[in-house]
Amino acid sequence: MPVEAAYPTDRIVLREVGLRDGLQLVKAWPSTDQKLDWLAQECAAGVTHFEVGSFLPASRFPQFADLPGLLEFFRTRPKLHASALVLNERGIDDAFTTNVAEIACVVSATEEHSQANIRRSRSEAIDLVRGAVAKRNATGHRALVSVGIAMAFGCSIAGDVKSEEVLNLVERCLEAGADLVGIADTVGFAGPDQVFELSKAVHLLVGSGRFSVHLHDTRGMAIANASAALDAGCRILDGSLGGLGGCPFAPGATGNAVFEDLVFLCETKGYRTGIDLHALTDVRRIQQAAMPAEQLYGAIARAGVPKNIQWAKGENRQQQAQVQGGRDEETYIPTR
Amino acid sequence: MPVEAAYPTDRIVLREVGLRDGLQLVKAWPSTDQKLDWLAQECAAGVTHFEVGSFLPASRFPQFADLPGLLEFFRTRPKLHASALVLNERGIDDAFTTNVAEIACVVSATEEHSQANIRRSRSEAIDLVRGAVAKRNATGHRALVSVGIAMAFGCSIAGDVKSEEVLNLVERCLEAGADLVGIADTVGFAGPDQVFELSKAVHLLVGSGRFSVHLHDTRGMAIANASAALDAGCRILDGSLGGLGGCPFAPGATGNAVFEDLVFLCETKGYRTGIDLHALTDVRRIQQAAMPAEQLYGAIARAGVPKNIQWAKGENRQQQAQVQGGRDEETYIPTR
Repeated sequence: MPVEAAYPTDRIVLREVGLRDGLQLVKAWPSTDQKLDWLAQECAAGVTHFEVGSFLPASRFPQFADLPGLLEFFRTRPKLHASALVLNERGIDDAFTTNVAEIACVVSATEEHSQANIRRSRSEAIDLVRGAVAKRNATGHRALVSVGIAMAFGCSIAGDVKSEEVLNLVERCLEAGADLVGIADTVGFAGPDQVFELSKAVHLLVGSGRFSVHLHDTRGMAIANASAALDAGCRILDGSLGGLGGCPFAPGATGNAVFEDLVFLCETKGYRTGIDLHALTDVRRIQQAAMPAEQLYGAIARAGVPKNIQWAKGENRQQQAQVQGGRDEETYIPTR
Repeated sequence: MPVEAAYPTDRIVLREVGLRDGLQLVKAWPSTDQKLDWLAQECAAGVTHFEVGSFLPASRFPQFADLPGLLEFFRTRPKLHASALVLNERGIDDAFTTNVAEIACVVSATEEHSQANIRRSRSEAIDLVRGAVAKRNATGHRALVSVGIAMAFGCSIAGDVKSEEVLNLVERCLEAGADLVGIADTVGFAGPDQVFELSKAVHLLVGSGRFSVHLHDTRGMAIANASAALDAGCRILDGSLGGLGGCPFAPGATGNAVFEDLVFLCETKGYRTGIDLHALTDVRRIQQAAMPAEQLYGAIARAGVPKNIQWAKGENRQQQAQVQGGRDEETYIPTR
């Protein structure tokens, strides 16, 4: 699949990573049926891009054991896009036996985190990317290979991270054949000015807004950081419904950027997402039912959409787009 | 007092409004001793500007009955700045019997909210500002007279609010003699681009960053909006410790921008606040003890300061400034 088809740069792509990053540390998780409801309802609300699990040993990560089954959901829905995480060769092999549309690799910004996270050096992690691309090309599988640079804004183990270091890794990942590279504030160290500067630099390096920014709300900066990333030209943002998710390297952390609040942010900035916020926040009920012990975050779910917002009134128009499982092409109006 | 002394524009002024806006709707509130502890501990942490109550009838607003006593705290601390809200002539008269450093008036952006909030038209509200300035000048009192434009980014009663309308009101308030004007997102309708645009316009009108932006976190945008206000040149931001506060016109609303998260935002953007975040977040214990039923918000209190942040290591230097009850002039380094 050409990366341009999955990630057009004339609009914002919001990726819902709750079924992967959101379930990384939970003690209870939704059943496969509940996950499928979660996916179906979010698709109906207009969400198009998902990270749905990790190709990891089911013995250690039982919450992702049903990943191949979840991917089947996407087989009949070509307008949707499903990615899954891989951390080793075994995961890559497993991924290519499925219809996954994107294999998401991780390269840490620091040696220290790389070893702690995947027991490999950064160079070995990039070799893994290179191997995934080679295997993809050899098998004729159509999956994209993407890389997220973890701890790109500072590392809870090693401390400061230089932008040059991150940009160098981005370059090496692209050289290794990655279709898409992103930068991640894994432990929520960044403020908006740092996100703006690094996003701007990645934008220049990549030559377009086709790179992702993955934010955690550990210190309450996720929405401000997302706004800064958009201002710097980034066109792909990650979030999880209800802000679900944590990080083993960020104690006391809240989760990912709240997906529904990201939608609201984009809309206030004039980027039409095609997502019905009322329908989207309803999906939190599935999370609450499946994981009653998990705290959900987010302000839009509590306060609702402001009555003065123009786009909130066009629900019927948006609903049409949702039925098609994608954005409404004809009425897409870039207002920014 | 010259407004330049209270609000220098070569740095960011963060105003803690928890003792006023934070207590507007609570059912239980701190005792006077607890309030004084709150103030003393925040001063020790480096906070310099406070809104400490409203001059309103004690029969209807008993939480503010001890306002004159709280203001006494500031009499021996000339480097600190205390303001209080007034909504009518009686309040203005009462204010001038105290040592309050700033009388904060409110003018609504819409007629509808003006009537609902203070049962006066916007013109009558501006007349009140004019009256306060005249009385101040006649009595020789040194208090500043400030105005906040409520619902400046949209109104939960009237809907959309035009920027031109807000700018016109800002101009009229300045003509009426106001020393300082601010814009308030009373019900949390704004996104960062709107805040940037309106702040920029106010900056042009006022001729400097000496205007305030008062944000509520109703829809999770407060920190992003604060960042946008700073980017537009605003130098005065309001917040409340723990995000305490609500708004009778914003059902389901969370409170003000979280003060401690605002401090973190400023520091990530290179604006030194002189505030010790560890000492500041400790003050939440007073809130929890005095108002156990109130939900406190904020991420920094939960996750702590990132280990890679340079300024977080300079606590000793900051503590010196705190002892003096103000910023450390000699070591103030504008890094932006």
